[in-house]
Amino acid sequence: MAEVSRRQVIKFTSAGALAMLRGGLLGQGSSQNNQSVAVWGIFETTWKGPIEGNPFRDVQFSATFTLEDRHIDIAGFYDGEGQYKVRFMPDVEGNWKFTTHSNKRELDGLTGYFTSVAAKTIGHGPVRVARTFHFAHADGTPYYPFGTTCYAWIHQSEALQRETLETLSTAPFNKIRMCVFPKSYEYNHNEPALYPFERTPNGKSDFSRPNPAFYAHLEERILDLQQFGIQADLILFHPYDRWGYATMPTEDDDQYLRYIVARLSSFSNIWWSMANEYDLMRAKTSADFDRLFGILVAGDAYGHLRSIHYSKSMYDYTHLWITHASLQTPNFGAAEEYRKVWNKPVVFDEVGYEGNLNRRWGCLSSAEMTQRVWTGILSGSYVTHGECYLTNPADYREDSAPVLWWSHGGKLHGDTARKIGFLRQITEDTGKSNPHRIGWDPTTDPYYSNASLFDPEGRHVQTLLYYFDLHQPAWYEFPLPEGEFSAEYLNPEEGTVTSIEGIFSGKSHIILTGKPYQAVRFRRLS
Amino acid sequence: MAEVSRRQVIKFTSAGALAMLRGGLLGQGSSQNNQSVAVWGIFETTWKGPIEGNPFRDVQFSATFTLEDRHIDIAGFYDGEGQYKVRFMPDVEGNWKFTTHSNKRELDGLTGYFTSVAAKTIGHGPVRVARTFHFAHADGTPYYPFGTTCYAWIHQSEALQRETLETLSTAPFNKIRMCVFPKSYEYNHNEPALYPFERTPNGKSDFSRPNPAFYAHLEERILDLQQFGIQADLILFHPYDRWGYATMPTEDDDQYLRYIVARLSSFSNIWWSMANEYDLMRAKTSADFDRLFGILVAGDAYGHLRSIHYSKSMYDYTHLWITHASLQTPNFGAAEEYRKVWNKPVVFDEVGYEGNLNRRWGCLSSAEMTQRVWTGILSGSYVTHGECYLTNPADYREDSAPVLWWSHGGKLHGDTARKIGFLRQITEDTGKSNPHRIGWDPTTDPYYSNASLFDPEGRHVQTLLYYFDLHQPAWYEFPLPEGEFSAEYLNPEEGTVTSIEGIFSGKSHIILTGKPYQAVRFRRLS
Repeated sequence: MAEVSRRQVIKFTSAGALAMLRGGLLGQGSSQNNQSVAVWGIFETTWKGPIEGNPFRDVQFSATFTLEDRHIDIAGFYDGEGQYKVRFMPDVEGNWKFTTHSNKRELDGLTGYFTSVAAKTIGHGPVRVARTFHFAHADGTPYYPFGTTCYAWIHQSEALQRETLETLSTAPFNKIRMCVFPKSYEYNHNEPALYPFERTPNGKSDFSRPNPAFYAHLEERILDLQQFGIQADLILFHPYDRWGYATMPTEDDDQYLRYIVARLSSFSNIWWSMANEYDLMRAKTSADFDRLFGILVAGDAYGHLRSIHYSKSMYDYTHLWITHASLQTPNFGAAEEYRKVWNKPVVFDEVGYEGNLNRRWGCLSSAEMTQRVWTGILSGSYVTHGECYLTNPADYREDSAPVLWWSHGGKLHGDTARKIGFLRQITEDTGKSNPHRIGWDPTTDPYYSNASLFDPEGRHVQTLLYYFDLHQPAWYEFPLPEGEFSAEYLNPEEGTVTSIEGIFSGKSHIILTGKPYQAVRFRRLS
Repeated sequence: MAEVSRRQVIKFTSAGALAMLRGGLLGQGSSQNNQSVAVWGIFETTWKGPIEGNPFRDVQFSATFTLEDRHIDIAGFYDGEGQYKVRFMPDVEGNWKFTTHSNKRELDGLTGYFTSVAAKTIGHGPVRVARTFHFAHADGTPYYPFGTTCYAWIHQSEALQRETLETLSTAPFNKIRMCVFPKSYEYNHNEPALYPFERTPNGKSDFSRPNPAFYAHLEERILDLQQFGIQADLILFHPYDRWGYATMPTEDDDQYLRYIVARLSSFSNIWWSMANEYDLMRAKTSADFDRLFGILVAGDAYGHLRSIHYSKSMYDYTHLWITHASLQTPNFGAAEEYRKVWNKPVVFDEVGYEGNLNRRWGCLSSAEMTQRVWTGILSGSYVTHGECYLTNPADYREDSAPVLWWSHGGKLHGDTARKIGFLRQITEDTGKSNPHRIGWDPTTDPYYSNASLFDPEGRHVQTLLYYFDLHQPAWYEFPLPEGEFSAEYLNPEEGTVTSIEGIFSGKSHIILTGKPYQAVRFRRLS
């Protein structure tokens, strides 16, 4: 590369025109300075650089993005075939400049500029913690996580991935827990089409050389999710492994993490889940994960949400680098204490799965799964869905390759998703009618723990939601706060809302159905 | 009383002829020396004594019963109208003698004799702890507590008491939790027909003077229960009070306890529950209950079962005077730990009630209540039933006087009792076919905690019971112990048993229904 190339801007990609990333329009050599990029979209600049040695490891490449008095350092990455890239997600409108830095002369001191513009199509920006226990997009729009889990969906056939996306396009989920690495676990033994690292023909991985094609595919899937407003809760490490990804040397772990952060932190819909069941990764200690979080915090200029999921032994969620707890337990009775102890949002990311597997974690009835989601939400936390139905259980054998939503994606066979849609609708409607009040907080009705409200300091309750779970009172005397309220029966199983005649105030005696799983909503009239 | 009366035996009552106690045939003056009394029946001797002052407090009266080289001291009691009584429950056949002791000359040194004889009609004797975590009658017959709760049934109208007994005569319960004192609590505000202490016309109690008519009625009810093989788990103190019984001076507490122990410990079907929700009795400390247990242990020569029930703060069940834990919680997940910690039977005496009340504790669906009973039993503990259905909830007002099984007795309106009958039948059948092996003990299937077996040391499992609660696996690979087993589906909701074709051995893959609340029983063939 000669001096001339230092000023040669090879390409800018605006994620405002996602097709450029998705459709493979990453043409080389066209100077596109002063592109327009949507706020919360991705600006990408690509430069030619060295190909000798191991560019992934040997070449340092980054850029400083500048807007007025702000200077933001962003790591670049090697994308193979001599291409070096930096991606940047602007958070405000403006005229940005950038200058590159590198230990290779031809990649150092390159400059360019672009304009970030408002764009409705690109969403509301990354999700942040809001009001201590809740979430909102960067532009302030409340975000209520109603997640699901398809651990290895990007490692299935193209047809199955398409089917998963089709399902997600109408399902009620706005977050998905998914692994970067392929998964080797019961019911899921297939080889992936793409591996995250270069492999020799005999299947040996070179952990020092990421596979750019693998990442291009992953990125395409993340942008697919973005189109549906779905957060990719990306699981960076996991123990379900037969390829060696769970037991890489420290140096390779660190390089992998720096690489994925450089590639993906400019995607607005990324959440970082450092690991699934971190404590089952016998080759690593908690201190290893502490170190990895350090790399993550240093590398992600946007402060995407960060957590880690455990099997039996909880990670220390008090750590400053943890933005929210990611729990494996259905112990919603502890949710309030968790909130107090950590002073962060509490997400019950694994509470069992609706399904019919021969595993205790994978055979909940829909009624029970729905109850768990409601109970969790009303405890002031959030709950992630999961489903694993064997469609032909009598035919199942060890060597069957069933398609289970939990691992593979595909179709939903259960009934819980529909019911979660109802709860999400109720929650978002409540959010819309309660500006600046984000999320359900538990209240302290002496008899029903499952009551929750929208009200930052408990002083002026706008909406009050009761859920009676497996209890079936025939009537209840609701202790309403000051003021006047309307009341409605909600049927979480059927997804129906029925007005209750009257205006309610103070202790309100209301006849109920006397059946399990009923709910009542009160909304302030005055 | 003259010297002559010292040898005048007024009456012996054999509980082998219960009618004598029940029918009011306690005639005076007939000498019935050398009566025959059934083993585990009640021998009663009555003597005339002083009536001046306060005989309840001033007169000490007891007897020593002697059979060969055994000498058993038994406290007597004043029964009003100048009558002093001692009751004795013989535990073996033989020719017993007795001699009385008193601080009143005319009641001291009286003697008599009687013969205790085998009698099938009288049952199997008091219930004892057996095999650490279980129970058996004194004659070795296994006893599996399937209890219910009717706190204040003896304080209702005669008609209602008769209805309760009618219900109990066919219900599947063999234990009933019931209060000595009347109850003042929501849904139960009636005055009792009889008070435990003498009262002035203006309603002031004299705690130093028990009311013998009250006790005669209580005893009649206990004998009614005995006819149906039902243990009276008698609650001696409770906080639901407006008469002052919960806040008596220490001296009166102690006298009351000595009195009731003297009257009732000869009834074979008594369990002592020192208190319900002892920790809600603000006028007493744990140390007060320790002291009361001391009185109980000293006064009850037969060692009836002893426990105490709490609201929030557990009593220390490690105390030597506690024979079994009596818990208020549905936390069956802790049952195994409780067993280990206390090394005693664990009875979950209050786990919520089937019903439709406006109280969280009183509105469980039948499916949930049944699940709690099954889960508890299979955790190696025992679970007590309760039910409270308002039959006309829409008509309920504060001043209604509904009849709720939980408090008043009457009829059962729910569906759980029937299903408990099924589990009791299965348990007792298993007990019958496994001599010397009493009770379900938890096993350690890695995925299903709800598996239990009959097998003292886990070495030679005879029967293995799986319960899948709200989980709905479509198949399961049962890890059977060595040997060959038959298998059956059990339907805890319908109470049906269906054979599964085949002989099972080792890992056994069995197709299940894929619906919640299924169970499978394996029985050893070889």
